[in-house]
Amino acid sequence: MERVCVLGAGSWGSALAMVLAENGHDTLVWTHRADQAEEINQQHTNRKYLPETELPTNLHATSDIAEAVAHSNTIIVAVPTKAIREVCEKMIVTLDKKVLFVHVSKGIEPDSLKRISEILAENLPAEFVEEIVVLSGPSHAEEVVLHHPTTITAACANIEAAEKVQDLFMNQFFRVYTNEDVIGVEMGGALKNVIALAAGITDGLNYGDNAKAALITRGLAEITRLGVKMGGNPFTFAGLTGMGDLIVTCTSVHSRNWRAGNLLGKGMKLQEVLDQMGMVVEGVRTTKAAHQLAEKYDVAMPISSELYGVLFNDVEPKVAVDALMMRVKKREIDEMTQ
Amino acid sequence: MERVCVLGAGSWGSALAMVLAENGHDTLVWTHRADQAEEINQQHTNRKYLPETELPTNLHATSDIAEAVAHSNTIIVAVPTKAIREVCEKMIVTLDKKVLFVHVSKGIEPDSLKRISEILAENLPAEFVEEIVVLSGPSHAEEVVLHHPTTITAACANIEAAEKVQDLFMNQFFRVYTNEDVIGVEMGGALKNVIALAAGITDGLNYGDNAKAALITRGLAEITRLGVKMGGNPFTFAGLTGMGDLIVTCTSVHSRNWRAGNLLGKGMKLQEVLDQMGMVVEGVRTTKAAHQLAEKYDVAMPISSELYGVLFNDVEPKVAVDALMMRVKKREIDEMTQ
Repeated sequence: MERVCVLGAGSWGSALAMVLAENGHDTLVWTHRADQAEEINQQHTNRKYLPETELPTNLHATSDIAEAVAHSNTIIVAVPTKAIREVCEKMIVTLDKKVLFVHVSKGIEPDSLKRISEILAENLPAEFVEEIVVLSGPSHAEEVVLHHPTTITAACANIEAAEKVQDLFMNQFFRVYTNEDVIGVEMGGALKNVIALAAGITDGLNYGDNAKAALITRGLAEITRLGVKMGGNPFTFAGLTGMGDLIVTCTSVHSRNWRAGNLLGKGMKLQEVLDQMGMVVEGVRTTKAAHQLAEKYDVAMPISSELYGVLFNDVEPKVAVDALMMRVKKREIDEMTQ
Repeated sequence: MERVCVLGAGSWGSALAMVLAENGHDTLVWTHRADQAEEINQQHTNRKYLPETELPTNLHATSDIAEAVAHSNTIIVAVPTKAIREVCEKMIVTLDKKVLFVHVSKGIEPDSLKRISEILAENLPAEFVEEIVVLSGPSHAEEVVLHHPTTITAACANIEAAEKVQDLFMNQFFRVYTNEDVIGVEMGGALKNVIALAAGITDGLNYGDNAKAALITRGLAEITRLGVKMGGNPFTFAGLTGMGDLIVTCTSVHSRNWRAGNLLGKGMKLQEVLDQMGMVVEGVRTTKAAHQLAEKYDVAMPISSELYGVLFNDVEPKVAVDALMMRVKKREIDEMTQ
C-alpha cells in the first residue's frame, strides 16, 4: 500500500484516484473547491465530473493542498496544462521529501513551447523530485470507472520509475505498459487534441467517415513528423499514446475536444463554444503551440495550420477543411513524409 | 472520355461506376443478374446495394460479360475475392486487346495465399494485360454516392498506370493519390477486415472505446509487421490504405465486417451471422489466410490468431478478447515490434 495523492478532481483525476483506491492505496484527492472535497468525503460522488459514479469509500478528498502533499510519496498531477505552474508554486511550500511525480495532462504551453514534464522539472526543486513520469493513452474516464478494459502507457527515461507507476495502477481492467520515450508520449498526447478538434469540425460539416478517416491518418502523419524531429521514437506515435489515443479522441462521443470542434463545424464561434462547454478544451491552446512548433522545427503541419486559421484568424471551417482535401500532392508517400 | 466497365454491381462496384459515369466516361456495369441490369438501365437504381441512390442516366448495365469486356479499354474488377478466378475465366473468352485492369477487392486467397493482383496476373493472358492497378482506401460506398469527400489510393509498380487510374476517377469529391507499393496497399486493405471483425467483437461484448482503440492500434502493428516482411513499405501501412481504411472499417456503422464481428460478440454463431448478413464478409476468409501467413512468415499476429480460434475453433469471443488484453508484455515498444 502506497501513500498517494491526485491533484485535481476533474473526470480524469477522479477516475485515476478511484483506480488507486480500488488497488488498495491510501489515496487522497485534492480539489481547490471545499464543497467538492466534502461531497467526495461524505457522499462518495463527484457529480459534476463523473455523474453516475459511486466512488470507493476508502477514497478521501481535501481542499488543503499542503495536506495532500504531506500525505504522499507519489503525487499525481491531474490539472489542466494552464494550471500546472500555479500548482507547482502551491506544492513547493510543503514539499520536504523526495516524491515520485506522475502527470496526466495533455498539452504544450504556447510561447514557451514546453512539455508538461519540462514545466514540472523547471518549477519543482530537484532535491524533492524522485522522477517525473507521464501517464497517457486511450482512456476515457467514463469507461475506466465502469471497469471497461483500458490500456495505457507510463513513460520515463528511468524505466524503473515507470515500472513503479505501472505497479501502482495496474489491475485486471487497467493495463499499464512502460515506455522510455517521454517526448514521444507527451507530444502524441498533446497533439491528438488538435486533430480531434479538426475531426469534430469535419463531422460538424457532415463530411462523413471517409473524410474523417483521411484526416485522422494525415493527422498522425503530421504529429509523427514533428515529434520525431523533436526526438521522439516513431514507434511511440504508432502506439497507444499516439495512434490509440488519437483514434479514441477523434471517434468517441466522450471527447470534449471533438465536441468543441463539432460545434465549430456547425457554425458556432470559438468563444460561444468555450462558454457552452464550461470545461477546459486543451486543444485550443495546443493548436497555438503546434502552429509555433511547426515554424520552429520547420515541419509541414497542414491540419494544425488550417485549424489555427479557424480558431484565431476567423477562417471559415468549410474553407479550411476544403483546403485540406484539395491539397495538390499526388503521390501518397510524399504526403506522408513531407 | 474513356470506355470503361465495372464487373460487379455490389455497393462498391456500383458507387465506383457512378463516379466514372459522373466524370463523363462511357461506363458499363456488369452483373450476372439480368433483373439487376434491367433495374439499373430502366429505373437507374440498385435498391439491394444502394437503397437510397439515384444512379446517373448515362450509366448502363449488362448481364453479358462479353459485351462489357468488348466495350472497354479499362476494366474495373469489383467482385468478391472468391469470385475472381471465375470472372477471369469468363473474361478470357472475349479479351482480344490490351486492357488496363483495376481491382478494388480486399482479400487474400486462403491456402494459395495470393493477393488479388497475383490471382489476376496468373489467370489473365499477359498479352492482353496493359497493367494491373489496385484502388483502395477509406471509402464507404454509401458516402461516395452522397458526394462526401473521399480520398483513395491507386497503386501500381508502374506509376504511369496508377496515374491513368487517378485521372479516370479524380473529381472534386473523390481525391485519388498514387503509390508504387502494391504489396503494402493490398495487404493493408485485406487485413483490416480481420481487425474489423475483432473490433466488432469487442463492441459486441460492450468493452468500450478504450479497448477498441487499443485493439485497432495493435491491429495496425501486426498488419504492418507482416506486410513489411512480405515486402511492403511501412509508410503505406501508416497511410490511407492502411491506417485510414482500418479506422473507417472499425468505427463506421457501414462496415459489414464490423457488423459481423458485433453479432459474434453478442453470442451468435458464425454460420448464423453469415446467414443473417446475406452479403460476403471478406474478413472471415482473410482471417484464415492471415493465420496461414503468420506461420509462413513467422510473424506474431496475436489478434488474427485469437480471431481464428473464435471463427474456426469454437473459442468463446470473451475468452479470446480477454487473452489479448492480458498479454504479458510490459514494455510498449516490445509489443509494437514483436
